[in-house]
Amino acid sequence: MRLVTFRDPQGGVRVGALDAHGLVRDLVLVDAALPQDMRAVIAAGPAALARAAARLPAAPVVAGAQVLAPIPRPAKNVFCVGKNYREHAKEFAGSGFDATAKEVVPEAPVVFSKPPTSVIGPGEPIPSYLDPTGSVDYEGELAVVIGAGGRGIRRAEAMRHVFGYTIVNDVTARTLQHRHRQWILGKGLDGFCPMGPAILTADEVPDPGALRLRTWVNGELRQDATVADLIFDIPTLIETISAGITLEPGDIIATGTPAGVGIGFQPPRFLRPKDVVRIEVSGIGVLENPVG
Amino acid sequence: MRLVTFRDPQGGVRVGALDAHGLVRDLVLVDAALPQDMRAVIAAGPAALARAAARLPAAPVVAGAQVLAPIPRPAKNVFCVGKNYREHAKEFAGSGFDATAKEVVPEAPVVFSKPPTSVIGPGEPIPSYLDPTGSVDYEGELAVVIGAGGRGIRRAEAMRHVFGYTIVNDVTARTLQHRHRQWILGKGLDGFCPMGPAILTADEVPDPGALRLRTWVNGELRQDATVADLIFDIPTLIETISAGITLEPGDIIATGTPAGVGIGFQPPRFLRPKDVVRIEVSGIGVLENPVG
Repeated sequence: MRLVTFRDPQGGVRVGALDAHGLVRDLVLVDAALPQDMRAVIAAGPAALARAAARLPAAPVVAGAQVLAPIPRPAKNVFCVGKNYREHAKEFAGSGFDATAKEVVPEAPVVFSKPPTSVIGPGEPIPSYLDPTGSVDYEGELAVVIGAGGRGIRRAEAMRHVFGYTIVNDVTARTLQHRHRQWILGKGLDGFCPMGPAILTADEVPDPGALRLRTWVNGELRQDATVADLIFDIPTLIETISAGITLEPGDIIATGTPAGVGIGFQPPRFLRPKDVVRIEVSGIGVLENPVG
Repeated sequence: MRLVTFRDPQGGVRVGALDAHGLVRDLVLVDAALPQDMRAVIAAGPAALARAAARLPAAPVVAGAQVLAPIPRPAKNVFCVGKNYREHAKEFAGSGFDATAKEVVPEAPVVFSKPPTSVIGPGEPIPSYLDPTGSVDYEGELAVVIGAGGRGIRRAEAMRHVFGYTIVNDVTARTLQHRHRQWILGKGLDGFCPMGPAILTADEVPDPGALRLRTWVNGELRQDATVADLIFDIPTLIETISAGITLEPGDIIATGTPAGVGIGFQPPRFLRPKDVVRIEVSGIGVLENPVG
């Protein structure tokens, strides 16, 4: 299933699913026991998910539904991974914006976070005006949504803890990222975490490495990679983070961006108002946001 | 007032206040309209706080109350500031554990975060066993609790957004902090954010710079500073973070630790099981945790 959080024309917000035509179907209407909130749906476990899937064919299309971020308000900051594609690590090192380490390719996962207030949905404008230095950059990423929580999850067990996958744009104010050394201020601004359109449930992704991620700016292809190119793969990320931190249902891990971001160009090609960033991951859909 | 979150002997958790003798008084019993949850109390605004203060003298003592972290489950990660006391910045630079920057004293606030799952209360053991490298260190800190939220808060207005002050121990696994470059993995482990015992409301702190912070390990004084020694003071931190990130009621900003942490010694003096870390800030109280 491709689960979404949507707002109906009356203003009600609840969980639905995208059908093959990309239309929103109302799951709660055919399964009154299904929680309306995505975090609660995830916490309800596999039985609730299976029941919703069984009833999906009967679910009516919601005319005029607005798709929001699948988890509009995460219960904690979004975990994010930096420098996790080899060619991107090189372009970042070459850009001069990395103040944090001498090595180009990291020896261990570089993890930081974006606050819940940074999350916006598909179509919402990215508030580039919040970066007074005009250094806003895009980073298309595959994000993992945790299902069953836990601490000390080992690599071999890690995929059992994945509820599904979504797309995140790890929008970054490069000057702030560099100036403040740690990255939350440069990457955590309001609206700097577009997310969506859907959570593709893990049962539909036998091999996440095969997922292809592409990013366009104003129709120009900028990023094109497969998840198999990750330096630290999804099981390694889950093992590393959960070694000391309890992961909880609904936690989000953005896995890193491939080469092709704005600072990979000479001179850098930062986002400007009226630009449009479009990120597509096979099977999940398209996350498109204008720059405001 | 010194507001606390406490658990009564029947297991109920709600908001109270410490009296002059350090006893917990049950505010909800004398003010049924007061929310039971600290985040909701903060969000309820100054009128709710004033009413609770007026009724405090009539509030009964709760026998056998266990004081928890004042905000046991923050709604997002705790904002934290690194290298914000000059002498500590020097000891950290000299320790070899800072992988993030060449400069000793930062030119701009260094901000990172600790997940809500890292928060524990007074008396709860710090799970040092979660750091397999045996490099656990203490960092006594004054933390600011945000009252009225906002974005773009200017220095001159910042103190109006402070609800109160508490103590945080920014416990750190130094090897992980260094290995992963960004600090959330080394500082965000479960139980690595002891907090409490109370939130001292801002009306009782005419000059936060005058607050004295002291940390003892097993009775030995290790840190002794006043908040006036901060490199980036509280208004500057609020202005810097809120420039692009909306601060919300109940958000927590740990302002940084002074000199005297374990890695300031040669060789480093890391925490060991059965050690006891005691942090005192004048007016707020004592946050004491054993190491587990």
